[in-house]
Amino acid sequence: MNYQALSALIKAKKSYLCVGLDTDIQKLPSHLQHEPDPVFAFNKAIIDATAPYAVAYKPNIAFYEAQGPRGWESLQKTLDYIPDDCFTIADAKRGDIGNTSGLYARAFFDKSAAGLDFDAVTVAPYMGHDSVMPFFDYPGKWVILLALTSNPGSADFQRQSVDNDTQELFETVIEKANTWASHEQLMFVVGATQAEQLCRIRELAPKHFLLVPGVGAQGGSLADVSKNGLTPDGGLLVNASRSILYASSGTDFAEAAAAEARAIQQEMATYLV
Amino acid sequence: MNYQALSALIKAKKSYLCVGLDTDIQKLPSHLQHEPDPVFAFNKAIIDATAPYAVAYKPNIAFYEAQGPRGWESLQKTLDYIPDDCFTIADAKRGDIGNTSGLYARAFFDKSAAGLDFDAVTVAPYMGHDSVMPFFDYPGKWVILLALTSNPGSADFQRQSVDNDTQELFETVIEKANTWASHEQLMFVVGATQAEQLCRIRELAPKHFLLVPGVGAQGGSLADVSKNGLTPDGGLLVNASRSILYASSGTDFAEAAAAEARAIQQEMATYLV
Repeated sequence: MNYQALSALIKAKKSYLCVGLDTDIQKLPSHLQHEPDPVFAFNKAIIDATAPYAVAYKPNIAFYEAQGPRGWESLQKTLDYIPDDCFTIADAKRGDIGNTSGLYARAFFDKSAAGLDFDAVTVAPYMGHDSVMPFFDYPGKWVILLALTSNPGSADFQRQSVDNDTQELFETVIEKANTWASHEQLMFVVGATQAEQLCRIRELAPKHFLLVPGVGAQGGSLADVSKNGLTPDGGLLVNASRSILYASSGTDFAEAAAAEARAIQQEMATYLV
Repeated sequence: MNYQALSALIKAKKSYLCVGLDTDIQKLPSHLQHEPDPVFAFNKAIIDATAPYAVAYKPNIAFYEAQGPRGWESLQKTLDYIPDDCFTIADAKRGDIGNTSGLYARAFFDKSAAGLDFDAVTVAPYMGHDSVMPFFDYPGKWVILLALTSNPGSADFQRQSVDNDTQELFETVIEKANTWASHEQLMFVVGATQAEQLCRIRELAPKHFLLVPGVGAQGGSLADVSKNGLTPDGGLLVNASRSILYASSGTDFAEAAAAEARAIQQEMATYLV
C-alpha cells in the first residue's frame, strides 16, 4: 500500500488506529484454548471485531516466535486473514549487516520465501545504513525505523546528546535516514509517551507517517499525539495492543475489543476534521 | 555454559573459533538439494567436520527465518545436533520493550516454548536497559550486546561523538551495559574490522568475552584481533561463516570446511600460548 492509498484510507475510515496483535497464548480466554490454533482463533475474532475501526494491523513478531514453528504458522494465517484494504506491519525490530538484512527483508516481504508479505517492517537503526537499505529493495514496501521509543530505556541512548550537544541521537537517526529513502518508503517509530518531542520530530520529518505505540497500557495520550503529530495527509498510525486485545478475558472478548477500538476511532474522528 | 567453563574449553581446544551457521539454502551444494531438510543436512556435515576445531556455533537467525516454519524446524534440529560441550549463540539481534524482550528471551532460552535453548543471544542496544534486562532473567544464559559492528554502517551511529565529544556512542553502550550485568552474563559484539578500537574496548571491558565477526569474507585480521583482544581467560570468540561454509561448493564441502576451520584453529593456537 503506497503513501497516497494509506492517506486516503485514513480519511475514508476516519481512523488512524493500528491494532497491535501482540497475542500472548498465556492470556487467551480459556474457551479458546481447545481450538486447534488458539492464537489464530483469537486473532481472527479480534480482526473481525476491529476491522471497521482500524486502518492497520501490527503483529509483534516476538509473540509468534516464542511459539516456535507453530507460532510462525499462526502468523501466516493471521496475515492472510487481515483484510486487503488494511496496512500490515511486522513489528520485528530487525537489523543486521547488509546481506543478512536482505534475508530479513525476504522473510517479511517475499511471500514465496516464508509465506509472509507484510507492507512494512520495523527496523532498529544501531547498525547504520547498510543494515536498513536492503529493505528498500522491495518496491511498495516500507521500513519503519525506530527513532524515539515509548519505553523507559529510550533515555539511555536515543536521548544522548550528540554532535557537541547540538542535538540528540534520535534526531541524528531521523536526519540520516532521510538521506536513505523518502517519506514514501520510510516511517519512524515515535512513542506516545514522547508527545512533547513530536513537534521537533515534525520539523525533521514533516510528511512522514509516524507509527506511535504507547497509547493505552503504556500511558501515552491520544489527544497530545494527535495535536502534535497529524498532518494534512494523516501522518500517524497510532497503535493500541493490550487495551484492545484484553479488554475482556471472557467469552465476550471480541465485543469488548470492538467497543474499545470504536471508542478510539471515534476520538480520532474528532481530531481529523 | 558459564564463564569458567568457556574459558576452560578455549584452553583445552586451543581455539576460540565460532562457526557461523549462516546457511543460505540458495548456496548449498546441489547434491544436498534432494535431502528432506537440505539446510539441516548441510549444517550436520559442517558441524561434524568442524567440531574438533571450534568452541562455539552461531546460527544467524535471518537465514532460518527466511525459510518460514520449516526454517525454524531446521534451526531446532541444528541446535540439538551441536555437541553439548560447545557454546551456542542465536545471532538474532533482537530487542524490544520489556515485556516483549521477555518473549524473545523465552523464544531462544526456554526449550519448552519454541524448542530452543541457546547459551546466548545477540541483542541490539538502541532501546536501552529495559529492552535488555529480561534476557538476564535466565540463569546461566548470556546477552551478547552489539557494541561496534563490522559493517560500513557502524560509522553512522555507533561512532557518533556523545557527551560533549568526550567519547563515542559504542563506548557509552559498553559503560551503561556494565551497570546491568557482569562479565559472567554479558559479552559484546566487536567487529574484526574495528581492531584498532579493541584496545579502548579492553579498557572498558577488561574481562568480558567479545564476539568478533568480520574475519574472513569481511576482511578483518585474526592476528590484529588476537593481539588486542585476548585475555588470560580467553576473552574472544572469533566468528567465521562464509569462509568455512562455502570453502567448496562441491561434494567435498565438508572436507574443505574442516581444512579451513583447522587452519584458523592452528593460527589461534599460536596466539594462545
